Amino acid sequence: MDDPYRAFVATYEPPVRRGASGPLTGLRFAAKDLFDVAGQPTGAGNPDWAADHPAAPADAWAVAALLAAGAALAGKTHTDELSRGIFGENAHYGTPLNPRASERLPGGSSSGSAAAVAGGLVEFALGTDTGGSVRVPACFCGIFGLRPSHGRISFAGGVAQAPSFDTVGWFASNGTTLARVGAVLLQAPVGDALPRRLLIAEDALALSDAPVRAALRAPIERVATLIGTSAGHLLFPSDPETWLRHQGTLQAREAWETFAPWLDRRNPRLGFEVAANFFRNLTITDDALAAAAACRAEMRRELGALLADGSVIALPTAPVLAPLRDQTRGAMQAPRLRIINFTCVAGMIGAPQINLPLGVSDGVPVGLSLIGAPGSDERLLALARRLDAA
Amino acid sequence: MDDPYRAFVATYEPPVRRGASGPLTGLRFAAKDLFDVAGQPTGAGNPDWAADHPAAPADAWAVAALLAAGAALAGKTHTDELSRGIFGENAHYGTPLNPRASERLPGGSSSGSAAAVAGGLVEFALGTDTGGSVRVPACFCGIFGLRPSHGRISFAGGVAQAPSFDTVGWFASNGTTLARVGAVLLQAPVGDALPRRLLIAEDALALSDAPVRAALRAPIERVATLIGTSAGHLLFPSDPETWLRHQGTLQAREAWETFAPWLDRRNPRLGFEVAANFFRNLTITDDALAAAAACRAEMRRELGALLADGSVIALPTAPVLAPLRDQTRGAMQAPRLRIINFTCVAGMIGAPQINLPLGVSDGVPVGLSLIGAPGSDERLLALARRLDAA
Repeated sequence: MDDPYRAFVATYEPPVRRGASGPLTGLRFAAKDLFDVAGQPTGAGNPDWAADHPAAPADAWAVAALLAAGAALAGKTHTDELSRGIFGENAHYGTPLNPRASERLPGGSSSGSAAAVAGGLVEFALGTDTGGSVRVPACFCGIFGLRPSHGRISFAGGVAQAPSFDTVGWFASNGTTLARVGAVLLQAPVGDALPRRLLIAEDALALSDAPVRAALRAPIERVATLIGTSAGHLLFPSDPETWLRHQGTLQAREAWETFAPWLDRRNPRLGFEVAANFFRNLTITDDALAAAAACRAEMRRELGALLADGSVIALPTAPVLAPLRDQTRGAMQAPRLRIINFTCVAGMIGAPQINLPLGVSDGVPVGLSLIGAPGSDERLLALARRLDAA
Repeated sequence: MDDPYRAFVATYEPPVRRGASGPLTGLRFAAKDLFDVAGQPTGAGNPDWAADHPAAPADAWAVAALLAAGAALAGKTHTDELSRGIFGENAHYGTPLNPRASERLPGGSSSGSAAAVAGGLVEFALGTDTGGSVRVPACFCGIFGLRPSHGRISFAGGVAQAPSFDTVGWFASNGTTLARVGAVLLQAPVGDALPRRLLIAEDALALSDAPVRAALRAPIERVATLIGTSAGHLLFPSDPETWLRHQGTLQAREAWETFAPWLDRRNPRLGFEVAANFFRNLTITDDALAAAAACRAEMRRELGALLADGSVIALPTAPVLAPLRDQTRGAMQAPRLRIINFTCVAGMIGAPQINLPLGVSDGVPVGLSLIGAPGSDERLLALARRLDAA
């Protein structure tokens, strides 16, 4: 298979099949190189991790489920190192190309999976989403992507980062395929029920760059028409970076606990930005950790109540267009924080969030996100499928 | 040239000469890959630094001085990444072998230079010493090594780390060669004057492992006999790690300031331990920095007064034998701190310190160090030369 977008770590020819047929027969997929495939190395975007994990003993749960449903695995895709990053840059392996905007970043950490789908190399692809790693590349590459409710899909056989945030997500270039894959991974049918009410996060729109706002005006109307009821809503607290700080605290501590034994044993090579992220843990106090946990509990209560009636929150997946490639670390800090400020919401409450690739600004994709109540994944998928027909 | 100790980044065949003859004619040397050699890359132990510095515009000052004195440059040697490390380990390029103790670490960061000299591949070699990077590998590899007075030898054309600590040092397998090279680099003759009094740091010996203490008993007596006068001395403050903490604060801040622009621009791959060292800067408060600067000023006054009469302090170069290779990061933390606790003293006061390879414990080298007053480098070199004859 050609790989014009440098999306793949490895391609399998012929694609891996496990002899099954089912609802996904005829579809080829790619898996982020964070998922085990029996007998293959799992690299997680780091050469020393790859050397330490040369042959997985079994397929990851999600890979096995898709193969059992008849899909064929075409290869494994690039990821930000250890899934830490949202732009798709990797200090060891470079940056996949964004098939929809070649001068811009593809987003990450599930960068190669998004590029492979957006470039038409596979029909769908597995990613993981801890802090935005499916939603952001889906947004930047202009494809559908779902971060499901936390805990609905087994993460077994994936390289964990921050277990209370880690999810198995996936990408597709149309809503119908996204929903078909979802029925397999969620082990539940995707019916016709749509979200019941659209809450338009006016403050999130105000925090977004003008091209993003402009590009999402018509898509929001389109979705509102489908759902039937909409209302303006103020999503963020008065200091709109409060949740960002608390989410960062929780994720940094968990990621440190996940990787510290390996970092200690192996002293691996890491990109400096990735190492910097780990060292955020150094500055976390017990008080900060307790405050972050309290904030998460409160968010779950309040937003859980808000979304319990089938409402979904509409907001830009990212408040900025995909940044240009090859900028300095320093230049990326501000867009990184602005993006995570949006993606942290669903992560904190364990909610599903879907990227709908409905916007465009001068040819650059702009994604609209919907966040539903935890467990309402099927409604979001039904809406995505419905958009194909609309 | 064969490189059985994996000491060299690059070897030059024939060796580089600049057409001069002088006091070092007939001697071959190696230079740590922190020094510029005109037209050659300077790698500093990091592949991304090497890519960013593919061809030096001119020889570093020390390299030029040695070539102008008739020495021939045989190659450039491995270093801990960005000179940050004291064990000789490098996450990108591996660890040179210790020619005197193959199962043990060679020491660093001037690891390849020490291995090349100890293995007899060159007569002498250039290193740099910021926090121990000449003294520790000289000790572990059983050769002579000098960290000169800070500021006596130009660092121009070297990759700086922490400028108020950085020095150009060198290694030789005998004291006579060490002194001949010193006369060139110090631009001053090395006469016959020896240190006038030996102050034996009893507390440093007590803090050292028993094999180190035992191995240095006879060498200390031998040096005391040569010098003629000796006395016991308590070197460290009541909390013997006070200086270590303050030196670490100053070095961490300076190293951060040195490399931050490049780290920001390039987002390089770094070994995790090296990245961890940089992030020590994150936890430095203004108060800690002020306290460290005050401590350094006080040390300079007090130890300057003590050493003003030509006295030298004798202590083990390292309180431990060279550690075994291939241990975890975690296992290396305690020996690292114990070693730097000793090497930080000369760094804090800008004093010269010489490693005399006079001890051995079950075949493993044990080094004796002498610290003299700033500017007394020639006396230390005269003593090293005298030991050859004794």
